[in-house]
Amino acid sequence: MNDAPTAPSPAIAALMASPAYRRAADTLAAEHDRTVEDIVTLTQIPSPPFGEEQRAQAYLEMLRAHGLDDVEMDGIGNVMGIRRGTGNGPMLVVAAHLDTVFPAGTDVTVRREGTKLFAPGVGDDTRSLAVLLAYMRAMDAAGIRTQSDILFVGDVGEEGLGDLRGVRHLFTEGKYRDRIKAFITVDSPDLDTIAVGGIGSKRYRVTFRGPGGHSFGAFGIVNPMYAMAQAMVELAKTQVPAKPKTTYAATVTGGGTSINAIPNEVWMDVDLRSQSADELARLETRFQAIVQQAVETENNARDTRAGRVSAELKLVGDRPAGATDMDSDLVRLATAAITAHGFAPRHEFSSTDANIPMSLGIPAIKIGSGGTGGRAHSLEEWIDVEKTNSVQGMTAGLTTILAVAGIAP
Amino acid sequence: MNDAPTAPSPAIAALMASPAYRRAADTLAAEHDRTVEDIVTLTQIPSPPFGEEQRAQAYLEMLRAHGLDDVEMDGIGNVMGIRRGTGNGPMLVVAAHLDTVFPAGTDVTVRREGTKLFAPGVGDDTRSLAVLLAYMRAMDAAGIRTQSDILFVGDVGEEGLGDLRGVRHLFTEGKYRDRIKAFITVDSPDLDTIAVGGIGSKRYRVTFRGPGGHSFGAFGIVNPMYAMAQAMVELAKTQVPAKPKTTYAATVTGGGTSINAIPNEVWMDVDLRSQSADELARLETRFQAIVQQAVETENNARDTRAGRVSAELKLVGDRPAGATDMDSDLVRLATAAITAHGFAPRHEFSSTDANIPMSLGIPAIKIGSGGTGGRAHSLEEWIDVEKTNSVQGMTAGLTTILAVAGIAP
Repeated sequence: MNDAPTAPSPAIAALMASPAYRRAADTLAAEHDRTVEDIVTLTQIPSPPFGEEQRAQAYLEMLRAHGLDDVEMDGIGNVMGIRRGTGNGPMLVVAAHLDTVFPAGTDVTVRREGTKLFAPGVGDDTRSLAVLLAYMRAMDAAGIRTQSDILFVGDVGEEGLGDLRGVRHLFTEGKYRDRIKAFITVDSPDLDTIAVGGIGSKRYRVTFRGPGGHSFGAFGIVNPMYAMAQAMVELAKTQVPAKPKTTYAATVTGGGTSINAIPNEVWMDVDLRSQSADELARLETRFQAIVQQAVETENNARDTRAGRVSAELKLVGDRPAGATDMDSDLVRLATAAITAHGFAPRHEFSSTDANIPMSLGIPAIKIGSGGTGGRAHSLEEWIDVEKTNSVQGMTAGLTTILAVAGIAP
Repeated sequence: MNDAPTAPSPAIAALMASPAYRRAADTLAAEHDRTVEDIVTLTQIPSPPFGEEQRAQAYLEMLRAHGLDDVEMDGIGNVMGIRRGTGNGPMLVVAAHLDTVFPAGTDVTVRREGTKLFAPGVGDDTRSLAVLLAYMRAMDAAGIRTQSDILFVGDVGEEGLGDLRGVRHLFTEGKYRDRIKAFITVDSPDLDTIAVGGIGSKRYRVTFRGPGGHSFGAFGIVNPMYAMAQAMVELAKTQVPAKPKTTYAATVTGGGTSINAIPNEVWMDVDLRSQSADELARLETRFQAIVQQAVETENNARDTRAGRVSAELKLVGDRPAGATDMDSDLVRLATAAITAHGFAPRHEFSSTDANIPMSLGIPAIKIGSGGTGGRAHSLEEWIDVEKTNSVQGMTAGLTTILAVAGIAP
């Protein structure tokens, strides 16, 4: 997707020319050291998968200190507060995720080398949490009132088996679920891409069971290993579209006890993905049928008097697919705002918190928090907070938010 | 195989009527307590897989104390000695195995309850080691000189991954390899079966490797899991004869690292068996071809630019198949001798030390050591040394050996 609208936007130009905007942008630059300190403070509060409470509490206090209304932790552990607008615009969510991929006990001390900060989770996504605070201060310093209410959210469960549970809760059970009309997640430093589509995924652990027995004495009975193999072979024959990109993979396997025993249990993990919810659903249906057919094939091929082969499908991951229209205001304004700050953003599909609203038809994008970084999800993760680049990226993000939320006259 | 010659044998009748035979049989009964003590002594010397030295040394001293000639430990750890005959018969081996299935550190203390002895390895095959000593004493007490030289052997590596290495060595590298013309292994108490055939087995660990990659980003590259599955499916289609019984099984599998990564390595264990060496070789050739074909199929089905799938076949078990002719003197004499003591032995195929000579065309059988027992290969293994039954079985074995070796006039 490189069909981005790159023509200069009169709306963005007008926004950036306004005195209030200038004051806000100047504040981002003037307070950059404080933003860096917030990054360090938050990074050094561990926030492992399913263990975000400590960081969430700290961030909740920061939201409160930044003057938001209705600051609270919701039922799943997200923390949030409202920066009220004039009531003339729809509610916009600006979110960053609290969780990291790093287990409890990981050393999260930040090490500085020049303008580089090294620490697990520092860029993904702790920098964004601090940048959101900077946006609040900049708007306050500039006396900006937006048309939309902005709900700032630090959410849980974005990574891995967290399975987007924080934002899923926000949109399915949260008290604002019917009011949110646009969603921006700020995730990782990179501003060269804007995620406008969410890759959906369904992940299964499939366990095949059978009677088991001695490899020689019980020869002829059904073997769950053959049912699993049959399912893998049929999966591998599946035709999927290149566009919307749709994929499958048998990835991890195990089972059996002894080289001279027909196993009574084997398992495989399968990852199904698509840029299209329809294609993902079609692939999932086919996969389920493949598993059932493979079980039947094995039960028909060999002796079942000692027992039949069965398969248990357990859904261990579920991220919905979706996309935000390239012609939507959200994508057009974000693209123009980020382009106006010297970036040339590509539009891509990825798997982020934005998947959830996208899957519900609510316009959503993922943008970056500014600066540069690397080695995310590794213990050597780093970001560079060199001021010029860092502020340039932050300003691009603030411009996006203000363009979408609208500044009240 | 129930076509055993069960008619009374004049040769066995004549043997059993001879005064020397009577004296030998009487000695087995008279010295039964000593045999039980030997069982206890030997059982309590640990003899784990690949760790038979301590028991082998003790047994070597016992062989020497029983007056055998040329007592020695060979290059692989078997211990043996010759009881010389008149030189008018071929050399007969009478063997029992030194090793147990129990790892070092297993408590091998013998517990007695009435006439029952409980301990790991007590029946399989420690009782037999003691019974061989009783045979030597009985022949000596009766002044029996056999026509054949009898080579008594306590051998290593009968169990599991030991892969019959002791007896394999005896027949391939041992100094008597060209002289041995018949082989009797005494293995476990049971005298109701005579093993006249050896089930051959070939065991493989097959490792499939490929480039690996992200399940979404690298979709389309070859996946070693699919090659393995294809091999399993083809193996499962293989037609094998019911007679001679021939079997295969994919039994244990593993591999892969993460649910969202196409694996770079997966593996499976496969067990191939047959009563027939020819059928086993045919099955093995087909299996190797299946693996290569599955690899080719996967390399042709998907993108190999990041690397191709390959398979490594590692032979982790190799027991040759073979059979002793039902009309051979060895089978006929053993069947008649054991039947004459009130047993009704069936003839069966199994996997014992006798596989090795059978595979070389040397007449070989497995008989039992007498008494009863159960739970072999478990920590609750037991034997019953109740004297009447125990002596009856021992005498049947001695009769077999004397019938085969021949008593000099």
